[in-house]
Amino acid sequence: MIKVTVIGSGNVGFHLVNLFYNSKKIHLNEWYSRSIKFDPRVKVINQIQKLAESDIFIICVNDESISEISDNIDFEGKLVVHTSGSTPYEVINKKNRRGVFYPLQTFSKSLDLDYSEIPFCVEAENEDDLKELKNLSEINGCKFYEIGYEERKTLHLAAIISNNFTNFLFGISKELIESKNLNFDILKPLIRETVNKIHKLDPVKAQTGPARRNDNNIIKMHEEMLKNDDIKTLYKTISQMINEKYGN
Amino acid sequence: MIKVTVIGSGNVGFHLVNLFYNSKKIHLNEWYSRSIKFDPRVKVINQIQKLAESDIFIICVNDESISEISDNIDFEGKLVVHTSGSTPYEVINKKNRRGVFYPLQTFSKSLDLDYSEIPFCVEAENEDDLKELKNLSEINGCKFYEIGYEERKTLHLAAIISNNFTNFLFGISKELIESKNLNFDILKPLIRETVNKIHKLDPVKAQTGPARRNDNNIIKMHEEMLKNDDIKTLYKTISQMINEKYGN
Repeated sequence: MIKVTVIGSGNVGFHLVNLFYNSKKIHLNEWYSRSIKFDPRVKVINQIQKLAESDIFIICVNDESISEISDNIDFEGKLVVHTSGSTPYEVINKKNRRGVFYPLQTFSKSLDLDYSEIPFCVEAENEDDLKELKNLSEINGCKFYEIGYEERKTLHLAAIISNNFTNFLFGISKELIESKNLNFDILKPLIRETVNKIHKLDPVKAQTGPARRNDNNIIKMHEEMLKNDDIKTLYKTISQMINEKYGN
Repeated sequence: MIKVTVIGSGNVGFHLVNLFYNSKKIHLNEWYSRSIKFDPRVKVINQIQKLAESDIFIICVNDESISEISDNIDFEGKLVVHTSGSTPYEVINKKNRRGVFYPLQTFSKSLDLDYSEIPFCVEAENEDDLKELKNLSEINGCKFYEIGYEERKTLHLAAIISNNFTNFLFGISKELIESKNLNFDILKPLIRETVNKIHKLDPVKAQTGPARRNDNNIIKMHEEMLKNDDIKTLYKTISQMINEKYGN
């Protein structure tokens, strides 16, 4: 059974602990956290130097702290990976075998997640460790992809655009609708279908709307309706980009 | 049984014909189309002046043509509605009883749709017709909302932002990923979860990402990675808006 230690209790660390705890093939060895004092499922530890020996140490802390955390792991020759989309494995102290175990998903502590819906992007200095990380993904029924640093950075950027930015647009829509005392629920079937479509139709081919069909009356009317200057500018910018790229 | 005539064979007209044809409580009377010559389910007609009498005429043509089409309907005192999100019912010739039957959904001819997932925004000049339009929505298992012109315009604007604009971002993400010879499928679980979240968590509260947490290193790196100046500007603009609104 693979012994795994999770380091960090942010959104990623929190969900990896759930994931590993529920797997019969993984022994969740320890969980390093500075904020959590006790968890009935796993031994919690708050001093990185006192971690017990493990097969894999998974560092789930913010990008800037990965290097220092890895320096303070008091073992050599172990598999130590981080979970960052934008950091090369080289920031990890080279006294250990290094790699990356990047979950391409959005995590919130307050929300359950279907754990089979996490694609893991794996990378490692050597072949055996790469196999081990693939194994770690598969044990949990997750898909894995062997991804190098350049590709991973691009995936992370695409994730920001597809997740953070679209969520921001959903937020704008919600506030617009609520400003007319309507309920955001009215819009949810449309949002669901917008995403259903990407599974059936290339989004590049699915583009519709006033900017696509050069409907300048509608665009002008919408610009006039938007009282917030930043949102108005955003509306103009994206409409213009859609029109330049897709306009009839 | 309500006799319904559908006018227009764009995406909306096409799907309304499917919807009504499959309803046992509606008689799909005629379908006006200039491009379609024959349909086994319904009598197709290409001269608006020759339409047969019907209980409801539903005009599904582009906004600019609604008025002229309504002038050419050779009846008086019938219920005539359009399906536009951005047009008042007053553009319809007042010789008939006027209203709106606006489906807040995205339609593509090539894609099937769960028809219970269409919220209809209904409006009518008089109470009986409003009831009739609500009835028409409910017969099909769809939700309806009684929405006036001002609110409907805002819903349409929010729909553009939540659907067209997010689809545009999905397209950018896809092209970024494919530029590294990776498959867009890797990103789909994240996109699915982005939308699942809006059902459980207010998007305003769910906002995450580098712009939210003031992670300027990542933002700068992403800007450098984006070679297309328009997309770079878009990335900067949205990041700045997220930071101003949500930044820690």
